[in-house]
Amino acid sequence: MNKFNNIKKIIVKKPLKLDCGQTINNFPLAYETYGKLNDKKNNAILIFHALTGDQFASGINPITEKDGWWSNALGPGKAIDTDKYFIIAANVIGGCMGSFGPSDINPDTKKPYGTNFPVLTINDMVNAQYNLLEHFKIEKLFSVIGGSMGGMQVLQFVSNFPNKAFTAIPIACTASHSAQNIALNELGRQSIMADRNWEDGFYEEKKKQPDKGLAVARMAAHITYLSKAGLQEKFGRKLQERDDLKFSFDADFQIESYLRYQGSVFVDRFDANSYLYITRAMDYFDLTKRFDGNLSKAFENSDTRFFIISFTSDWLYPTSENREIVIALNAIGKNVGFVEISSDKGHDSFLLDVPDFLNTVKNFLNTSYKKIK
Amino acid sequence: MNKFNNIKKIIVKKPLKLDCGQTINNFPLAYETYGKLNDKKNNAILIFHALTGDQFASGINPITEKDGWWSNALGPGKAIDTDKYFIIAANVIGGCMGSFGPSDINPDTKKPYGTNFPVLTINDMVNAQYNLLEHFKIEKLFSVIGGSMGGMQVLQFVSNFPNKAFTAIPIACTASHSAQNIALNELGRQSIMADRNWEDGFYEEKKKQPDKGLAVARMAAHITYLSKAGLQEKFGRKLQERDDLKFSFDADFQIESYLRYQGSVFVDRFDANSYLYITRAMDYFDLTKRFDGNLSKAFENSDTRFFIISFTSDWLYPTSENREIVIALNAIGKNVGFVEISSDKGHDSFLLDVPDFLNTVKNFLNTSYKKIK
Repeated sequence: MNKFNNIKKIIVKKPLKLDCGQTINNFPLAYETYGKLNDKKNNAILIFHALTGDQFASGINPITEKDGWWSNALGPGKAIDTDKYFIIAANVIGGCMGSFGPSDINPDTKKPYGTNFPVLTINDMVNAQYNLLEHFKIEKLFSVIGGSMGGMQVLQFVSNFPNKAFTAIPIACTASHSAQNIALNELGRQSIMADRNWEDGFYEEKKKQPDKGLAVARMAAHITYLSKAGLQEKFGRKLQERDDLKFSFDADFQIESYLRYQGSVFVDRFDANSYLYITRAMDYFDLTKRFDGNLSKAFENSDTRFFIISFTSDWLYPTSENREIVIALNAIGKNVGFVEISSDKGHDSFLLDVPDFLNTVKNFLNTSYKKIK
Repeated sequence: MNKFNNIKKIIVKKPLKLDCGQTINNFPLAYETYGKLNDKKNNAILIFHALTGDQFASGINPITEKDGWWSNALGPGKAIDTDKYFIIAANVIGGCMGSFGPSDINPDTKKPYGTNFPVLTINDMVNAQYNLLEHFKIEKLFSVIGGSMGGMQVLQFVSNFPNKAFTAIPIACTASHSAQNIALNELGRQSIMADRNWEDGFYEEKKKQPDKGLAVARMAAHITYLSKAGLQEKFGRKLQERDDLKFSFDADFQIESYLRYQGSVFVDRFDANSYLYITRAMDYFDLTKRFDGNLSKAFENSDTRFFIISFTSDWLYPTSENREIVIALNAIGKNVGFVEISSDKGHDSFLLDVPDFLNTVKNFLNTSYKKIK
């Protein structure tokens, strides 16, 4: 795909056995880096993106020409300080920003994979990204950090590679995707699949795009990223450029106009099949499953120092679910800090300018970094 | 429409001026009754249905052949005791169970109204139903009762007709639709409108049905009717008739299968345009608007005894929003009781077998009834 010609990527040659049973190799993994790797190679941070993120965490995303998704947190002097640390961010496999995904060409058919792409897991995504450590010849990361699905990858990374990260910051996430969250993801998938242009996933070869279904999926998700109180404060019942109700199905209320906008801009930057695959990976995520329901066992062999962060108004990955991870780590005497940040911005808090959150991350990283220098 | 030939209805001859400015008359209002009106005509209860309800509150709905939506609450010896009271339930205008709605034939065009049907409000719905009091020659109702959108109608009824109900029980509702609830309704509307079969609302004349869009709208709404904890307890991560994940987009989890089922059965009984019109009426509902933001003024002239009920796990119409109604009534010294019922069944609690709730309604009604006998 031409638009990805100028972005950084490695070709993973080593075979990767996926949880579904298939093995993939020689696949692209697109990444970006920020800051400089020091001589000791001990200042590297791997950050993991959430459902609709990508490798362009900071600065201007060259494909979308919009700000990177974590520009609030990542940059010179910021919480994740690019003057100090070397940050690596990859696009997850299954994604649509240059890594191996459903819109890639299937060499067997010479057509895009579509829904013939293998169903992936968070475990698969993390195992693919582990190749970046070898690529940069990094023995041990200073930190692994991520929010939402990025937090799930943090947990999976430490579980898979217990001595490969000095610290870990899982933010606003869970160790096991809840029924409500599966339901919400299924809603998004059904919305995409209901779009006649989806064509069972083979829309690209038919030169169609299930934009309407994808836009509705995004609207649904967007509502869940914000809190009831935050929505009320920001939008309430304010009308959209009108003095009174219009008694029609136009966007009378600002919140309607806002949602429609969120849906419409999303389809320009995201692939419908990637949305299906990545939400599926989230729903399949249950770190306790491999350990007979005992989450502590997932971290038994780890020497990583954890710092777990949740937000008061996050109802998608509420504090209670984040706290379960803290409890599991405490139960086996692991090094774990925890803070619940007060914010009315809902799940989205981890992406926004929430000073208490950003200061907390900054302090934890800088204090921890002194210990390894 | 033939299927509604054998259901009860009145034809409202008197002109009804709608909030949108249009006037309607000679329109059908479908209703059902339960129990017997006593000689004094002081045992009548008007119940109002929620978004997808209808006049068939109890027993078998003759159109859908399913149990009535309030069979748990309404019947001989039940909370709303049909041995004691005469219950009237109407289908709201805009609905699809025999009352004047968007699938009715427009006499001007000889085609279904579709989206040429006037946009309605809760106020319009209540004013239409007031005609039933005249039809049954009832001077004053014993009670007006409803949950969710039915509760909004209760509030509007008492505000419009301050001395026409001895008691009122608004359940799990609000006096002003919140930004989050507008957003969730807009999501449903966008899902319907995204379905190519919707045809700008004129699907019936084109012999099409926007079933996929309507099913997704229903799935979205259904998630909001249940609580996170309730979903987790009932479904968790249980698999649907399989031993392990199938690594596909089939319904692996029971919650997925359940949602798909809810969507698929809904389209057999509900009209997509009615869904648009009724959700629009809910979003337009703000009882404080006519009273300069002072909810107390809405009830200033009323002598109705209120009893307000909310549910702990209802995040759609949470206790805080129900309590605002209590506060507004208390502020002007009105007779008001209030209870928050403990339930993990979410907003749906008012429709389900929640004994504390049902007993509370029963006791309030029976105690109040002694005072008027």
